[in-house]
Amino acid sequence: VIHCAPAPAKPEFPAIRVSGFFQADTAWFDQDAANIIAVGDVQDGADFRRARLQAIGSVAENVDFSVEFDFGFPGRPSFMDVWLDVQDLSILQNVKVGLYRQPFGLDALTSVRELTFIERALPFAFVPFRQIGAMAHGSSKADDITWAVSGFRFPTDFNGGNIGDNGGYGLATRWTGLLIDNGDCAALHLGGAYCLIDPSNDAVQYRSQPEIFIAETGGAAFVPAGVPSTVPPFVDTGVIENTDLTNLFSAELATTIGSFHAQSEVIYSTVDRSIGSTVGFSGFSAQAAYILTGEHRPYNKTNGVLGRITPRNNFGKDGWGAWEATSRYSYLDLNDDDIQGGRLNDVTLGLNWYLNNYTKFQANYIHAMLDSPVNGDSDADIVAMRAQVDF
Amino acid sequence: VIHCAPAPAKPEFPAIRVSGFFQADTAWFDQDAANIIAVGDVQDGADFRRARLQAIGSVAENVDFSVEFDFGFPGRPSFMDVWLDVQDLSILQNVKVGLYRQPFGLDALTSVRELTFIERALPFAFVPFRQIGAMAHGSSKADDITWAVSGFRFPTDFNGGNIGDNGGYGLATRWTGLLIDNGDCAALHLGGAYCLIDPSNDAVQYRSQPEIFIAETGGAAFVPAGVPSTVPPFVDTGVIENTDLTNLFSAELATTIGSFHAQSEVIYSTVDRSIGSTVGFSGFSAQAAYILTGEHRPYNKTNGVLGRITPRNNFGKDGWGAWEATSRYSYLDLNDDDIQGGRLNDVTLGLNWYLNNYTKFQANYIHAMLDSPVNGDSDADIVAMRAQVDF
Amino acid sequence: VIHCAPAPAKPEFPAIRVSGFFQADTAWFDQDAANIIAVGDVQDGADFRRARLQAIGSVAENVDFSVEFDFGFPGRPSFMDVWLDVQDLSILQNVKVGLYRQPFGLDALTSVRELTFIERALPFAFVPFRQIGAMAHGSSKADDITWAVSGFRFPTDFNGGNIGDNGGYGLATRWTGLLIDNGDCAALHLGGAYCLIDPSNDAVQYRSQPEIFIAETGGAAFVPAGVPSTVPPFVDTGVIENTDLTNLFSAELATTIGSFHAQSEVIYSTVDRSIGSTVGFSGFSAQAAYILTGEHRPYNKTNGVLGRITPRNNFGKDGWGAWEATSRYSYLDLNDDDIQGGRLNDVTLGLNWYLNNYTKFQANYIHAMLDSPVNGDSDADIVAMRAQVDF
Repeated sequence: VIHCAPAPAKPEFPAIRVSGFFQADTAWFDQDAANIIAVGDVQDGADFRRARLQAIGSVAENVDFSVEFDFGFPGRPSFMDVWLDVQDLSILQNVKVGLYRQPFGLDALTSVRELTFIERALPFAFVPFRQIGAMAHGSSKADDITWAVSGFRFPTDFNGGNIGDNGGYGLATRWTGLLIDNGDCAALHLGGAYCLIDPSNDAVQYRSQPEIFIAETGGAAFVPAGVPSTVPPFVDTGVIENTDLTNLFSAELATTIGSFHAQSEVIYSTVDRSIGSTVGFSGFSAQAAYILTGEHRPYNKTNGVLGRITPRNNFGKDGWGAWEATSRYSYLDLNDDDIQGGRLNDVTLGLNWYLNNYTKFQANYIHAMLDSPVNGDSDADIVAMRAQVDF
Repeated sequence: VIHCAPAPAKPEFPAIRVSGFFQADTAWFDQDAANIIAVGDVQDGADFRRARLQAIGSVAENVDFSVEFDFGFPGRPSFMDVWLDVQDLSILQNVKVGLYRQPFGLDALTSVRELTFIERALPFAFVPFRQIGAMAHGSSKADDITWAVSGFRFPTDFNGGNIGDNGGYGLATRWTGLLIDNGDCAALHLGGAYCLIDPSNDAVQYRSQPEIFIAETGGAAFVPAGVPSTVPPFVDTGVIENTDLTNLFSAELATTIGSFHAQSEVIYSTVDRSIGSTVGFSGFSAQAAYILTGEHRPYNKTNGVLGRITPRNNFGKDGWGAWEATSRYSYLDLNDDDIQGGRLNDVTLGLNWYLNNYTKFQANYIHAMLDSPVNGDSDADIVAMRAQVDF
Repeated sequence: VIHCAPAPAKPEFPAIRVSGFFQADTAWFDQDAANIIAVGDVQDGADFRRARLQAIGSVAENVDFSVEFDFGFPGRPSFMDVWLDVQDLSILQNVKVGLYRQPFGLDALTSVRELTFIERALPFAFVPFRQIGAMAHGSSKADDITWAVSGFRFPTDFNGGNIGDNGGYGLATRWTGLLIDNGDCAALHLGGAYCLIDPSNDAVQYRSQPEIFIAETGGAAFVPAGVPSTVPPFVDTGVIENTDLTNLFSAELATTIGSFHAQSEVIYSTVDRSIGSTVGFSGFSAQAAYILTGEHRPYNKTNGVLGRITPRNNFGKDGWGAWEATSRYSYLDLNDDDIQGGRLNDVTLGLNWYLNNYTKFQANYIHAMLDSPVNGDSDADIVAMRAQVDF
């Protein structure tokens, strides 16, 4: 009798997996005359919105890690998920140390590989997102509740650093509950988050592009003076000086029923200033989508967000992949008292084609309605497309 | 009876392979006095001409991908092959989307890992090379014809972006035929390509170093004022403004017979201007090589270029690897009408040592003969060496 | 009878392994008034001191390679170990070509993944470290002697390049002996190194932070004018012009006995100037550590340095990992003749917690005593912490 080698008694460490993805975008802009005056003559173009390489894995049974960089953003490459996560820590459950997405927001914590639209919704402008710090996080035994509490330095730059004696600390916490859980059929998610920030050097700034971002930053083109080489922010508070503290509040709601899924989010920010009044800004978004080919979007219990759509049949000999129709409304108000950053409403219609579990094409039509304190009302129509592969 | 586990029924996706290479170059320059006046006092030096990491693989049976970055070029890291490729698409055969080498030129489409000389020949100055776009490409059933048709944004910067309302589009197509195919013994290749470009912001520029490029860009050395910290272009049109369209035409010829291989290429460019005459520029190169240790350079049918030389015996206990003697003549003429970019002739002799399939050392002696419109005739002699490993 | 597939007859090439690590640091500074005047008001902060991705492996039985980049350093990403190494070369033993750590110093050649303290000791300021070149290296048959002789371009920038006609070459050699080798119980190491450099453009500069480095370079914070966004050098010669040659001498001593290990190093540099006198600078460090949980720090015979501490029991269900108490004294004197760069003494106490073979947390308390030629004596107290995972 010949004995085959048995499986190794325990997994070997370090266990490393290479991962990554890219998003190649192209966009065309049609602005009315007032919009060109308000934000400049936005140019058509194409670029890589994101392109990432990541090493992810485990170095022990109870320690995971990620080292991930993005090469697509101007000022590149940027630090992304660069953390270690120690698990099975009794009351704390898990502790993550390094650079990671702070526990705040629903859209923000949905994987950028699995976004329903080309960009996150306008209220994302308020989200602290990736900051360097330490976070305890976990979930209930039944996996129907997730929780996270995190302390961090703020604002962390794109290379994961923050310097500053005068403040520079933040605290964030997010809690989610799965109110309905019918497995592969239906889920109803409710969540909320709070964040308190004492920013370095007493300064914060909120701003946002109209849910599309294309950049030409390598100097290839000979861009004439006055023409922006990236999509400029449509709304922008400018640097708000003398900021003692900012408070951020968010509430989130999401559902996935059969081939339908939807989510909504509201974020409110107050900025307490040592000179000048406390000002408040708000954002809201609501989106809905229907998967025309009958697939169900699953719920991701670990992260408390909607998950990845997998086509029943891949594009190719077997079929046409999955097709999804999407719509969204977003709102961002950066006006209060002496801070007049503008007000933006976006309506988006979209179509997504999932060729297989890792390849998708997305198309968005965005109608952006800007109310600029200085320049008045103006509109822009944007058509954008994305090709994405992840691995 | 013990049953060994059978092979998995089908390959798992994503299937990812890490690849990469580096080229460590060193060069010494001997310029005559006129050449120093014409292009500056070029400094000796050493650097990494290229150093790349790549994740490449498949995410489905019919979708391949590549995410590749180069860390060696100034303004680094640069986007290289960042694309997805959907296959088996009936008439279109395959469609590639993202950043990839546009189908134009023979030297340009030969892998930089497999170049016979340290740099590509002078006519490479005209080639659009990597631009962001979409391309249909394929080959005949007998694999003796390759074809490609591509549309793209132009000019794409080193991070894969292009912005610009005023133009910014290009079209390229290349066709090759294998006229003689005696398997491992002999091949005769004929090819041609055409490219039409409406550049962003109505500007193009052609320029070239003398087939060597060394750069010190990180600020380590204390470079005195007026001394170039990179090898400067020897010929340069400067920015040609008011460019409506450029047309590029190329013809290519290659052969590999026993241990001998040779290839030649001619490229012609016209630049149509809205103000000023249409100007035309041309380049030509011819090269021949003989593998002293008797190996045959194979033909790469997929890409329609010459392929990789694999030593019969690796350097080490078994032998001395493969040795190859090489020679090349290149010509680039950037003078026409009011555009006086200069004329450059290069003669190169080289010796390549392939230690194994993945390691090589190269030595080039380059005699560069510059005819500068302003400074007249001048010469430079360059000795350069490269160490390369790829994986 | 069923035959299991035999192991493959020989390993396949290229054999590639992905490796990397990150170090997330945070630091708090308490300076006396004189120190703030001397070096500026150093800010508290947090950042990634290092974050690296590496492809390492073999392309043939006798050729290894590494391609490694660091994304943490300002001016990033930096070239790290980017080399090929040809082995089994009779008298030369092994030859490495590319960018690698020059054979000079004990602390410098200890892996940055395995440092006892958060930063290397002050004399590291003199070390050429990574430069582009070629090196023969090897060891005695009994592995009790290591040797290396290397020629390189100097100074190589962070992207591996060096340009310059006027000098730009260096030579380094290091020899180590293992005087006592009681296997897993005790080792006594003695070593010395010499380096001769003719720097590009006749300029050198020595400087050092006080064994801590935190940087905010991405522009996230709004740093007020006059406040440093990185930890500034406490001692600095400035650019020493008219440098013909520099000589570097080092002597090193190390031991590991049971759970105790210690090492000491002295480095002396002379700078010969064409205008001005020859000046000399010196540095010294001595450190000792005790592993409280009883582990032994092994000796790394290949590199002639102390090796990696592996906990007997990983942190988790099985235990608490390894804990180590550490102490160090460092000295750097950059004053001589007209060059008055300052004198720095550092005393450090530390505690290291190794959760497992690949995860550690480090804490350092540093008392820095600066003697500034211009501003007189001043002190700074620094508390720093690091989280590190490598793979």
